[in-house]
Amino acid sequence: MSVQEAPSRETLESLLNPSTATLTSVLTEYGLYNTFMQDVAPLAPGSRVAGPAFTLRYIPGREDITHVPVDNLTDMQRIGIESIKQGEVLVIDARGDTRAGVMGDILATRIQQRGGVGIVSDGAFRDTPAIVETGLAAYARAMNAHNSKSIHYPSDIQRPIACGGVAVFPGDIVVGDAEGVVVIPRHLAEEVAARAVAQEDREAFILQKIQQGHSIIGVYPPDENTLAEYEAWKAKQV
Amino acid sequence: MSVQEAPSRETLESLLNPSTATLTSVLTEYGLYNTFMQDVAPLAPGSRVAGPAFTLRYIPGREDITHVPVDNLTDMQRIGIESIKQGEVLVIDARGDTRAGVMGDILATRIQQRGGVGIVSDGAFRDTPAIVETGLAAYARAMNAHNSKSIHYPSDIQRPIACGGVAVFPGDIVVGDAEGVVVIPRHLAEEVAARAVAQEDREAFILQKIQQGHSIIGVYPPDENTLAEYEAWKAKQV
Amino acid sequence: MSVQEAPSRETLESLLNPSTATLTSVLTEYGLYNTFMQDVAPLAPGSRVAGPAFTLRYIPGREDITHVPVDNLTDMQRIGIESIKQGEVLVIDARGDTRAGVMGDILATRIQQRGGVGIVSDGAFRDTPAIVETGLAAYARAMNAHNSKSIHYPSDIQRPIACGGVAVFPGDIVVGDAEGVVVIPRHLAEEVAARAVAQEDREAFILQKIQQGHSIIGVYPPDENTLAEYEAWKAKQV
Amino acid sequence: MSVQEAPSRETLESLLNPSTATLTSVLTEYGLYNTFMQDVAPLAPGSRVAGPAFTLRYIPGREDITHVPVDNLTDMQRIGIESIKQGEVLVIDARGDTRAGVMGDILATRIQQRGGVGIVSDGAFRDTPAIVETGLAAYARAMNAHNSKSIHYPSDIQRPIACGGVAVFPGDIVVGDAEGVVVIPRHLAEEVAARAVAQEDREAFILQKIQQGHSIIGVYPPDENTLAEYEAWKAKQV
Amino acid sequence: MSVQEAPSRETLESLLNPSTATLTSVLTEYGLYNTFMQDVAPLAPGSRVAGPAFTLRYIPGREDITHVPVDNLTDMQRIGIESIKQGEVLVIDARGDTRAGVMGDILATRIQQRGGVGIVSDGAFRDTPAIVETGLAAYARAMNAHNSKSIHYPSDIQRPIACGGVAVFPGDIVVGDAEGVVVIPRHLAEEVAARAVAQEDREAFILQKIQQGHSIIGVYPPDENTLAEYEAWKAKQV
Amino acid sequence: MSVQEAPSRETLESLLNPSTATLTSVLTEYGLYNTFMQDVAPLAPGSRVAGPAFTLRYIPGREDITHVPVDNLTDMQRIGIESIKQGEVLVIDARGDTRAGVMGDILATRIQQRGGVGIVSDGAFRDTPAIVETGLAAYARAMNAHNSKSIHYPSDIQRPIACGGVAVFPGDIVVGDAEGVVVIPRHLAEEVAARAVAQEDREAFILQKIQQGHSIIGVYPPDENTLAEYEAWKAKQV
Repeated sequence: MSVQEAPSRETLESLLNPSTATLTSVLTEYGLYNTFMQDVAPLAPGSRVAGPAFTLRYIPGREDITHVPVDNLTDMQRIGIESIKQGEVLVIDARGDTRAGVMGDILATRIQQRGGVGIVSDGAFRDTPAIVETGLAAYARAMNAHNSKSIHYPSDIQRPIACGGVAVFPGDIVVGDAEGVVVIPRHLAEEVAARAVAQEDREAFILQKIQQGHSIIGVYPPDENTLAEYEAWKAKQV
Repeated sequence: MSVQEAPSRETLESLLNPSTATLTSVLTEYGLYNTFMQDVAPLAPGSRVAGPAFTLRYIPGREDITHVPVDNLTDMQRIGIESIKQGEVLVIDARGDTRAGVMGDILATRIQQRGGVGIVSDGAFRDTPAIVETGLAAYARAMNAHNSKSIHYPSDIQRPIACGGVAVFPGDIVVGDAEGVVVIPRHLAEEVAARAVAQEDREAFILQKIQQGHSIIGVYPPDENTLAEYEAWKAKQV
Repeated sequence: MSVQEAPSRETLESLLNPSTATLTSVLTEYGLYNTFMQDVAPLAPGSRVAGPAFTLRYIPGREDITHVPVDNLTDMQRIGIESIKQGEVLVIDARGDTRAGVMGDILATRIQQRGGVGIVSDGAFRDTPAIVETGLAAYARAMNAHNSKSIHYPSDIQRPIACGGVAVFPGDIVVGDAEGVVVIPRHLAEEVAARAVAQEDREAFILQKIQQGHSIIGVYPPDENTLAEYEAWKAKQV
Repeated sequence: MSVQEAPSRETLESLLNPSTATLTSVLTEYGLYNTFMQDVAPLAPGSRVAGPAFTLRYIPGREDITHVPVDNLTDMQRIGIESIKQGEVLVIDARGDTRAGVMGDILATRIQQRGGVGIVSDGAFRDTPAIVETGLAAYARAMNAHNSKSIHYPSDIQRPIACGGVAVFPGDIVVGDAEGVVVIPRHLAEEVAARAVAQEDREAFILQKIQQGHSIIGVYPPDENTLAEYEAWKAKQV
Repeated sequence: MSVQEAPSRETLESLLNPSTATLTSVLTEYGLYNTFMQDVAPLAPGSRVAGPAFTLRYIPGREDITHVPVDNLTDMQRIGIESIKQGEVLVIDARGDTRAGVMGDILATRIQQRGGVGIVSDGAFRDTPAIVETGLAAYARAMNAHNSKSIHYPSDIQRPIACGGVAVFPGDIVVGDAEGVVVIPRHLAEEVAARAVAQEDREAFILQKIQQGHSIIGVYPPDENTLAEYEAWKAKQV
Repeated sequence: MSVQEAPSRETLESLLNPSTATLTSVLTEYGLYNTFMQDVAPLAPGSRVAGPAFTLRYIPGREDITHVPVDNLTDMQRIGIESIKQGEVLVIDARGDTRAGVMGDILATRIQQRGGVGIVSDGAFRDTPAIVETGLAAYARAMNAHNSKSIHYPSDIQRPIACGGVAVFPGDIVVGDAEGVVVIPRHLAEEVAARAVAQEDREAFILQKIQQGHSIIGVYPPDENTLAEYEAWKAKQV
């Protein structure tokens, strides 16, 4: 399976504004109901990221291969990190197992140096206070000081993985905000970005009406009158 | 089952001061040992709320009834929200299932506009950053961007429910602080409020003694001497 | 089993600087891969503590012995608290059961008054907002307002316990930072402290190189050249 | 909500033959992917049942209302049991909480005497050895000797419920076999029964071919040739 | 804490007849609602046992003390096994951790040779097929072939423990049947045994009436008439 | 990664006799403490299997690729099944997710026809009654009638996987008995087989002594005298 080509910078930038809640809703319009990672939260408040997934998969460790010194030339975690490209998000399948960290601050800093924009896992990170200080967007299920080799063995890079109960194919677009992480299938990225902008716009109008004291009846979801009002309001925004 | 009549504003206000730890302790004096919700935490620090419960119950979704556009006139979630009265707290039984949000920011804002003072669920909320900004007291088990209709179907309003492992009858008094949420059976609200004020008072005195270096022996729990001291101290406070 | 003698003040102080991630790594050099507590997090940001463990063990409550007034002279929780010595950390085995708090603010304050420097449990604390205000380092799995006697019975002090899936012997050294809690077997404390300082030093140098844009190849783990560079750099630091 | 009318005896009987695996597959043809109860297993091997659901819902107990003698005239569990009709299956929503049994052998026997054909819960049963002896089809998540009143309070009968993560509306058709329990929406019962018979037939033919050593290619799923062969085979079966 | 004296052989024998469901019910008459072990099931059908608890407690293993050859003279598991007395039931607190077996067939056989009548744990057993063949009553949460030393360290014998969420004091009476295991506080054993026999008797009469087609109204719970009928029936039984 | 070459028939046959408990113990002699699958149990009593692993990996489903008709030529599950060789055991990584079956009876039968000797998964099987009837050794975490495509997408064959918390490389030797499943790294298979036979032999002798009433002291673990006795006994067995 070849890795999917990255979307344009414009598409990725436009995905930084809508909330993951909006993006998740737009994806249901394509019949996709399982795109937001379960139990994967930002390490730091105010996190925001959008980029193509670079995937790394861990299987359970086995002492004869994991309790040995790391060899950067054969270890798939290390090879993966030195392969990450500008703008990518590293997504690590840790099987939801938080009994050890999947990565610490030195490797996170290396990813940042290579231009990586985020790290996401359904496992735990270690050195989390230091990772938070780097400013790299980081999402995980927990914090755990144990080294990954206590529990995990890195078996693959750039294969389809599971993370937080969601399928992630290499090159799928990963978007994170303060609520968590949504995965957008690569082939839908442009369309979803466009629809999300429109939906955010419409919901801003609806929210304004609710804040003014309107009932949700006729407003949310909007009926024809509200949609007409919205079109008028939108025309005035420009 | 008719909904229980709300306590006076004074009772509700007096329930805003004692901690949920104090209220939970007072309830054990009535033989009630299961009144604090498990795994239900405030979305924002400093949350504080007290009000009668307005209950909403979700069952698992079924695609033929949940993957369709919402109809405000028949959807029990929407009917419930438009029925909430001044001072009430919406409590949503989500079966502890956090695979989708039970509510987002637009509906939370509508509740706030109607005078609702809090939203509580053993599921997840979505649009949580925006919900936090509204200032409405919000308690949940998690954050999840998925729309409720991915997983949940709203089946009932104002029926007895489970939330965080605790029974909640419509009209029971829900009190939340930075630690979480306690449910006070309606018929005990006035008595519990009175006892809680007294207990907080007594514990403030005890804490002061402990801070002065006293052993807990004779002080916590207080023996006759300490109680006498407390009475004297209390008389001076006025 | 006699309680192990405490390390020197210097050793304890030197354990306050390295991260729990570093300490956990050093312990793997002794073949110990299970020393960091699972699902035990600081109640407040910035927590930091190092001290010998004073252990307390809870078993499930039984109404005839737990739903009765506390007697400070026979209750092992109370006896334990009045036995804690200067510099110790109270570690409570709550079997991971968070359905009630294991301790509230009055007892936490008493521990602080006695010179205790931290409280750690794989259960929940109650009165957590007030505990946070005391400034005592506190680590737990959750917050729960219920009194310990709803669920727990204190059966032993100063016996070996489990906490967060880790063995804790009385006198073992407990170190906590913003990531969580590591347990260092007493007999390794001095050696681990020394090695940790050295490892932190070396990793500071490595991190600097990574921040300057170096690949991890040859740097992390360091090859001979990098180690030589490090020795030179270190010589200059003094 | 009025309870849905029961299907004909013929429909119910025809639902006793296909496996729950077949029925679940047929339901996906209607877009329904969540119809089989999670973690709900037969108490005894060889269990088989099909009938309309009579629903009973439990919420968490509260000592003032559950630790009191049962009153058959007001207790919803008891009222429910004395309301069950010939051919119905009692389905109990226990919130997946197995800390107490939801029912014992005396009540199970009463249900059997009234003509009930099965009892299903996502909680536990008690007196399970005696329930198994009655021969009544029984499905649950666990066995637990505690009386329901330790943990549960029966709040409703004949309302929509959750059981094993599946929505159950009163009158929906519950079918159980040795694998577990599927819930068929009432309005689909006749169609699903017809399709299931056809699918079982087709799969019997396919299985026979596989047993004869055919590859799955062209056979499972069947291509045009295999379907033609099947039609010929089927014509001969009569 | 001295171990409690064993009840008479008659008391223990009379506890072999009533079901654990009956015993659990009788214990609620003493206000005890948490006496049946959660998730602890018989390894083999038809298991039945009653005897005083001999307790053994495991804490998490630590490689330096658990990955070494067993020394029968210092290992508390081995010391415990060689201390068990005729008629006792070994109860092992494994913290609900099933990642390794707590005991295998050779040690189980030794217990049987010493006159032990049962082994109970909230962990797993290993060599379970061979344990089942010994005929010793065995109750556990799972089967797991790993040796206990992979995960567990035996820290104490004859101390109060937790098992399946229930408090077990050395000498408490452990009763197991096909449903699971109930723990009877030692000081209640004689009374509970007597009441249980009476309750089983009464329920046998009630069940008979229900089997004859009577409604539960007036019968279960029995009203005065039914109780009178029961007394007459009972008089005739002798 | 090329798949490892299968051991000889003799080695595989000799692995059918020792229990998984013995094999797991032998593996600890190589420092391997995590080789037995957690929560993976035989579907039928008396199961026994040993063979090289053929691995299949599932990731979470996504409706656009899983809710479509199966294409045998591109679906990795189907390609995998038609690639299994004589004597192999299919091991499916289902991430421990039991919300759908990973395989039903028709595919299991096809595996059996191709000479496959077992199917193992940490997910659920569907059509389990029919699978049991085929006589194929089957191990899983649960039974679930839902089709795999409700929840899973087959992403890879013959890659390293996780199953029941254990690493499985293609060609590793999978051995199952009535207790569960152990995974033997391919390169240790011959040595482990030999040691296991010897250990079973020695333990048979030890068990005999324990059955004769000997204490474990000096016998288990055996001291020099017991070992000498064993050698003498063994010499006589031939």
